[in-house]
Amino acid sequence: MDPRTVSSLLEERLHGSANGSAGDGSRPGEPPYTRGIHPRMYLERLWTMRQFAGYGSPDETNRRFRFLLEQGQTGLSVAFDLPTLMGYDSDHSMAEGEVGKCGVAISSLADMEELFAEIPLGQITTSMTITSSAAILWAMYLVVAERQGAQWSGLSGTVQNDILKEFMAQKEYIYPPRESMRLVADSIEFSARQTPRFNPVSISGYHIREAGATAAQELAYTLGAGIAYVESTLERGLAIDEFAPRLSFFFDAHTDFFEEVAKFRAARRVWCKVMQERFDAKDPRSLKLRFHTQTAGVSLTVQQPQVNIVRTALQALAAVLGGTQSLHTNALDEAYALPTSEAALLALRTQQVIAGETGVTQTVDPFGGSYFVERLTDELEAACWEEIGKIDSMGGMVAAVEQGYPQAEIAKSSYDHQRRVESGDVKIVGVNAHADEATEPIETLVIDERVSRRQVARLKDLRSKRDSSAVQTALAEVGRAAAGGTNLMPAILEAVRAYATLGEICDVLRSEFGVYSERPAL
Amino acid sequence: MDPRTVSSLLEERLHGSANGSAGDGSRPGEPPYTRGIHPRMYLERLWTMRQFAGYGSPDETNRRFRFLLEQGQTGLSVAFDLPTLMGYDSDHSMAEGEVGKCGVAISSLADMEELFAEIPLGQITTSMTITSSAAILWAMYLVVAERQGAQWSGLSGTVQNDILKEFMAQKEYIYPPRESMRLVADSIEFSARQTPRFNPVSISGYHIREAGATAAQELAYTLGAGIAYVESTLERGLAIDEFAPRLSFFFDAHTDFFEEVAKFRAARRVWCKVMQERFDAKDPRSLKLRFHTQTAGVSLTVQQPQVNIVRTALQALAAVLGGTQSLHTNALDEAYALPTSEAALLALRTQQVIAGETGVTQTVDPFGGSYFVERLTDELEAACWEEIGKIDSMGGMVAAVEQGYPQAEIAKSSYDHQRRVESGDVKIVGVNAHADEATEPIETLVIDERVSRRQVARLKDLRSKRDSSAVQTALAEVGRAAAGGTNLMPAILEAVRAYATLGEICDVLRSEFGVYSERPAL
Repeated sequence: MDPRTVSSLLEERLHGSANGSAGDGSRPGEPPYTRGIHPRMYLERLWTMRQFAGYGSPDETNRRFRFLLEQGQTGLSVAFDLPTLMGYDSDHSMAEGEVGKCGVAISSLADMEELFAEIPLGQITTSMTITSSAAILWAMYLVVAERQGAQWSGLSGTVQNDILKEFMAQKEYIYPPRESMRLVADSIEFSARQTPRFNPVSISGYHIREAGATAAQELAYTLGAGIAYVESTLERGLAIDEFAPRLSFFFDAHTDFFEEVAKFRAARRVWCKVMQERFDAKDPRSLKLRFHTQTAGVSLTVQQPQVNIVRTALQALAAVLGGTQSLHTNALDEAYALPTSEAALLALRTQQVIAGETGVTQTVDPFGGSYFVERLTDELEAACWEEIGKIDSMGGMVAAVEQGYPQAEIAKSSYDHQRRVESGDVKIVGVNAHADEATEPIETLVIDERVSRRQVARLKDLRSKRDSSAVQTALAEVGRAAAGGTNLMPAILEAVRAYATLGEICDVLRSEFGVYSERPAL
Repeated sequence: MDPRTVSSLLEERLHGSANGSAGDGSRPGEPPYTRGIHPRMYLERLWTMRQFAGYGSPDETNRRFRFLLEQGQTGLSVAFDLPTLMGYDSDHSMAEGEVGKCGVAISSLADMEELFAEIPLGQITTSMTITSSAAILWAMYLVVAERQGAQWSGLSGTVQNDILKEFMAQKEYIYPPRESMRLVADSIEFSARQTPRFNPVSISGYHIREAGATAAQELAYTLGAGIAYVESTLERGLAIDEFAPRLSFFFDAHTDFFEEVAKFRAARRVWCKVMQERFDAKDPRSLKLRFHTQTAGVSLTVQQPQVNIVRTALQALAAVLGGTQSLHTNALDEAYALPTSEAALLALRTQQVIAGETGVTQTVDPFGGSYFVERLTDELEAACWEEIGKIDSMGGMVAAVEQGYPQAEIAKSSYDHQRRVESGDVKIVGVNAHADEATEPIETLVIDERVSRRQVARLKDLRSKRDSSAVQTALAEVGRAAAGGTNLMPAILEAVRAYATLGEICDVLRSEFGVYSERPAL
């Protein structure tokens, strides 16, 4: 008998699979890309294994980064602490008790230099999960790269920078919606001209889904936000194909296995049609929805934490079968703690097993032709268009967010889900099914107060040594650009180079733009 | 937006999926059952979660069984120790150092009574992994059930009893092939008349695959063995539809995800055609291949043992998407130790997450129509027929085994695989990819020597208290039946009732049938 296994029969199998077309008639690598953006998918290029990581001080996170790279991780993903996300320095009173807790504390270019010490930014792709202060952190990253001798034109990576999902779900906004949208458009415009291989925005369904949205809502509100970013960038006078190729997306890989696979397929199809029909994009790169995926943190349980390894593995497989370009697999303790290095490593190993052992990379869109998944894809597409139509009728996503519409819809879905968990209609192992009486607590990572003291001391030192008048001049320039409506990125870059801190730059913008509070729900 | 999720859209989705036909034109629940044996698959009946368990003394294993049942397991699966498998009592010199080590030690009806104490055999299904001494252990089980007041006609379960795979792969045989085949046919014949809901044989590809066979070889040699059992039972004068509905199968869920799904689909198709075309079976129950699955023990690694949780979860998903009727998920330490109760529980939780959280039970044959998996199914079917043709030309599976043919083919595949691991062509995380310098050993279950002493003492006590002349009479009757060619089951049942031990009954058969040794490979 022929002892060949799947890998040696590969070419024949791939040929058979890749020749079939999706419900819409398209083959892999053909618009609307339902079956994937590459004709040979992972045979052409494996997804990037990109574990979200960051805690404590920049030097601690630098060590974790280098550990993950040594273990075979193929890209970096930075988690910032809450003060950094909200535009406060580590020594601000609002930062107290939060420095380095849920991510790394970065207050100035000096911290960013320490974060990427000995990591050549010209040779690695980095994702930064930050939005309200995205422009400033991204500017710090660009200056670090520049000082390492890397060309901006060659830098690859992603800055999250998706403010609409903050208003919808994550709630880490600083300025009001329209001013926030301007900062995003500034980044996209700057990127189109200066960093053509960098993704200036990662339009994120993840937080929408984690807040309780259904798969269809995740699709509709994410792609709806994408439409809004395109419109506000077109207003700058850029042509669609100048910036659309660098728009990237970020989805959740939730628990409902087939629905998730179908969701990724539907996302590609809808976005391609949006680009073609609404924006008349011509460049195939503009038509291809590229996305990062994170497994569903919200699905993990404190009870029986090892069961989370199973959940994450299955969710990760759905992301891969759905054709993700990049993946974060949650560590088993990630629902409620910073992952220990053992837990983080096991999460990475989960991806490596899927990529290296299971053979699933050796085909293209394995659900192509499947009665069930093709149908689910069509259903999700239809639900997504219906919702995009509603948002259009409200005047677009910014207006819909100002009216609180997606927020209310997400809240309804979340309530519905919670009710179904309480009734037992939705089962969660360890919670309302197969619960144990006691769960042994597992070891988790604790950030001690020394991190905060160290950061405060470093900032004090920085403020005493830097050229204060240069800082003041640069900050005044940021204020002028903010008031005048020119692109803010050049002024922010200058302020960062002068070692103006994150908090100082944000304070200038807070005073120009105002600070937003959500109106209470009626 | 409609907040309904997959479960409330279920009927529509199921309808869409179930109406499609496989490459052969069949829909779910239709011959040749490529798309599954039930039209509504797991919506009709979930697979049985059946964790293989057994160690130490019967009372210890009884506690593990009751623990697993309390945790939501839905069937039992007994692992016996090596002396029991080989037909030696716990006090035999051949048993030294092995009593209770790899399974529970059972030497007599008294042990079997203790094993199932407080477990109502009339209400549970039990699988017993035993082959060479299968008839004797099964007889003990039937007598325990009888003494609990359960009707034999209502008992459900499976005895492995597949001797051909012992010669091919597992090597735990006692008697020569033709005498061994007679014992299997005796069981099938007896079962057809006395225990119509019990599976008297579980035709097992698992061990063939674990020994290094390819997926196609696993299919061909397993179904080839099935053909041999059918032929030897037909020689007893039974009609095909009198016993074929109770033939059951046991496959591996190995690492190559799609190939495994396709293998299960091909197995159903080939067996249905064998039954219809070769044996003219008419009862639909004869045509439906029902199977138990175990995830691939051989794929697990001693290095980085928690990664085994991931492997097992993905393999279990393949089994479920392939339509298994029953499933054992390996514990993370199962490759090299008896699972601790924590590890065993996590393995069960893996199944419960797949069944309860992922929504995959809410459709039928989700790969139906998939270009890739339908094609793989056709390929595996073709490879299986080709090999069955070769076995036919050798005079059937018993003759092929006597000639050492499948043994040699399996050895070739195993060697090929090993070579590909050594060359790095096949990657194994923790072994030849992403290896860590040191792996922390994990806690495993250790069976202490007290188990052996206790079993020896119990046997001494039994032998002193039982009616020796009744034992001698019953054993003499076993010898007469063996020599005379009548069905052995009634005589074995009488010997068991008289508390003749396993070793004593096997000794009678050893002296009548002879003991087999494999000829060395040329």
